[in-house]
Amino acid sequence: MGRSTTRRPVVRIDLGASPAASRRRPDELAAEEPLEIRLRRQALAVTMRTPGHDLDLAMGFLLSEGIIGSAEDVVTAQLCAGTDTPNTYNVVDVVLGAEVPPPVTDVSRNFYTTSSCGVCGKASIDAVRTRSRFDVTGDPLRIPAGTLAELPGRLRAAQRAFDRTGGLHAAGLFTAAGEMLVLREDVGRHNAVDKVLGWALREGRLPLTGHVLMVSGRASFELTQKAWMAGVPLLAAVSAPSTLAAELAEEAGMTLVGFLRGETMNVYAGVHRVTI
Amino acid sequence: MGRSTTRRPVVRIDLGASPAASRRRPDELAAEEPLEIRLRRQALAVTMRTPGHDLDLAMGFLLSEGIIGSAEDVVTAQLCAGTDTPNTYNVVDVVLGAEVPPPVTDVSRNFYTTSSCGVCGKASIDAVRTRSRFDVTGDPLRIPAGTLAELPGRLRAAQRAFDRTGGLHAAGLFTAAGEMLVLREDVGRHNAVDKVLGWALREGRLPLTGHVLMVSGRASFELTQKAWMAGVPLLAAVSAPSTLAAELAEEAGMTLVGFLRGETMNVYAGVHRVTI
Repeated sequence: MGRSTTRRPVVRIDLGASPAASRRRPDELAAEEPLEIRLRRQALAVTMRTPGHDLDLAMGFLLSEGIIGSAEDVVTAQLCAGTDTPNTYNVVDVVLGAEVPPPVTDVSRNFYTTSSCGVCGKASIDAVRTRSRFDVTGDPLRIPAGTLAELPGRLRAAQRAFDRTGGLHAAGLFTAAGEMLVLREDVGRHNAVDKVLGWALREGRLPLTGHVLMVSGRASFELTQKAWMAGVPLLAAVSAPSTLAAELAEEAGMTLVGFLRGETMNVYAGVHRVTI
Repeated sequence: MGRSTTRRPVVRIDLGASPAASRRRPDELAAEEPLEIRLRRQALAVTMRTPGHDLDLAMGFLLSEGIIGSAEDVVTAQLCAGTDTPNTYNVVDVVLGAEVPPPVTDVSRNFYTTSSCGVCGKASIDAVRTRSRFDVTGDPLRIPAGTLAELPGRLRAAQRAFDRTGGLHAAGLFTAAGEMLVLREDVGRHNAVDKVLGWALREGRLPLTGHVLMVSGRASFELTQKAWMAGVPLLAAVSAPSTLAAELAEEAGMTLVGFLRGETMNVYAGVHRVTI
């Protein structure tokens, strides 16, 4: 058992039993701990995440935020112990290349720094477009709907921790043939995606032309932004997308698939990449 | 139809039909837009949320962060239009009383400002304890497991938008008798909870002694923190809690119920408040 789950005592109550039963037993919970991402020892962000693949998480976060675009932008990245708890490694310290511009750490950086229309969905999309390094509009990916329909099952089968805790989101990267390249799990769905994209960056696979990113939950603006920042042409989700996720996907020329369950799915943008 | 959902065209693919069907139709999506929370016109935070109950959201956020403790800490709070899009109201500007200390806006403020052990789960819990104004340890709430078992159904029945979009998290505040006082929905589960707690603050109901906060998804550290900051003695979730959520609940003297489904539930902390 890794640090991604922890065993705790729990009282299980079953009102359907006769008489109603209450019984103490051990249960596996999804681990959640803070990770601080630092640039040259200066705190940039803290995220509550499930420990494991922390360097991938930090790289994926920096990529999603537009701070780095490839592994070459990073000189060193190391996992550091906390100051007096030798067994925890909850800090990743990153040194960027001298030519990499330092990030804007304004609270509003994610949303409308480049915009003239105040705070709105359109401005959020514009802000992402400004930072995106990859154009996915012309991505030649074509994938049969039947292949897409198989992805949730493969993601689920590969989830090692979910069966034990029920508390982890999953993200997986697939080829157009439906082969799973990597799976990551986390209590935070944005972290699961960052871990996948950070892995791809460290493997030198960016942009992710011709690939599919699949997530176990819903598709938000933030997840769609992350996919675009890594050059992913198709984002698929088991659950619903938001309006702004669909609008961003359309604007980016990405394909967005939601409610991918059983033999059905909804395509919210870029339907030309899904063949029947 | 309010701004909480938006209609968009979608291509529905059904591989189970014979022959496989692909058909364009309108679909309801959960709305997602940025909301900027300002203190005296200075940006404090931006959250991606479903429009609606934005003043509640801002108040709940400020409460959860420990910046305010009651409605009296707020002089004015107003929803402002963006600079050149007159029909969007994506900014809440708040003026705090002169006696309210300004917030620490350091990136790390949520996690370990008061701690000696660097970044770790223990430090995160300590940081919340320092800011919490309400002691829920001695809260006299006692609730029958049978009453708890009815809450998910009541929450679901009251969700107006979910059936149409499948994309909204819900949070509801209940009395010990199982009566629902308020329900809020949002694409972000933390926003749904902030909207509920902000409503309670504006109604002068804090601390929420004797109440139950119920959420439609998982129970994270962040949601447990929010419940504690409002003096809620019992947090119930349809899905799994994380390790740090269970640890925080135990430390706070709160009751944490997870996997509340059908006639069964798991109690992760404070089982003395649940009677059979």
